[in-house]
Amino acid sequence: MTTIEKAGPRERLLRAAGELFYREGITATGVERLCQVAGVSKRSMYQLFETKDELVAQALERFGPVTLAAHLPDEAAPLTPRERILYLFERWDASAGDPEFYGCPCVNTATELKDATHPAALVARRNKRELIDFFARQATLGGARDPETLAQQLTVVFDGVAARTLVEGAGVAGLGVATAAALLDAGGLRAG
Amino acid sequence: MTTIEKAGPRERLLRAAGELFYREGITATGVERLCQVAGVSKRSMYQLFETKDELVAQALERFGPVTLAAHLPDEAAPLTPRERILYLFERWDASAGDPEFYGCPCVNTATELKDATHPAALVARRNKRELIDFFARQATLGGARDPETLAQQLTVVFDGVAARTLVEGAGVAGLGVATAAALLDAGGLRAG
Repeated sequence: MTTIEKAGPRERLLRAAGELFYREGITATGVERLCQVAGVSKRSMYQLFETKDELVAQALERFGPVTLAAHLPDEAAPLTPRERILYLFERWDASAGDPEFYGCPCVNTATELKDATHPAALVARRNKRELIDFFARQATLGGARDPETLAQQLTVVFDGVAARTLVEGAGVAGLGVATAAALLDAGGLRAG
Repeated sequence: MTTIEKAGPRERLLRAAGELFYREGITATGVERLCQVAGVSKRSMYQLFETKDELVAQALERFGPVTLAAHLPDEAAPLTPRERILYLFERWDASAGDPEFYGCPCVNTATELKDATHPAALVARRNKRELIDFFARQATLGGARDPETLAQQLTVVFDGVAARTLVEGAGVAGLGVATAAALLDAGGLRAG
């Protein structure tokens, strides 16, 4: 949180929310604590965000895509579509081995809120669509028989690896890459 | 909750906890509400369970295995190992289409608690091991090349389907069965 201080109150609240909701949970993070960590008064918070729910949605809007971007290969990297997909799973398996890993923020938000119409649930769905679209694009380029189905299956693996890690309390080395590779073979994604 | 009334206070608390934690969340369910739904005083609750954490663990201990059992094929059914595994995924895909589906209680508990040493996290890990063992047993019987790895991959699919459903806010028809079938093929599980 060392970089929060120089930012304005809105930015400080978004960053504190992004971190606390991910590390400690959405319900577990009260407005008091959020404002304390952000160094913003409750009055100011409610001037910037109508409700805590709105802050939950906007923090995920900001930091959900950051999680995805951190696992994507460089667009300029000389990789095949298959390699691009496996690169993402290598990065995700590596992240899952980090003691500060608490899963996918989008899935966690949906799991905790249990309300598919919550503003943050809509953000989670939209963010996740970005991941599915990445998979579908690569699957199409790689000549998969049914790119959208394969993309959904790969997203199942992505989310399942996070769930396994959370339950085991430790990374599950190489599980994402191996499972994804088997599905790429089955889906007809060329190695070239 | 209509069947709760005839049970004793301990049983009423376990049932109310199992339902509320699953449908509304662990942190979101305060002790007040829990006692109100169970029809038990807070004083009685703390005589029966030292802490709320202890109740969280014992409720999962009781109802986690019920979730698994509801999706397993009858032991006497004339099914091959491959068919047993796919039966479970057919049931799980069907459950995911239920509007009252909120995912896997074990994964939800680990996701929300974010503490791998919490007594309920230990229960979640143990319960999930039952599922992995079911997969590994069938994979061995079916002649899979690496039954434990295949079992881990199938658990990834199981958990991933739940996560996809929660994010989409709707069941993802047939996704579990199709993904599992592709992994069974890849893992060398005979059709016979």
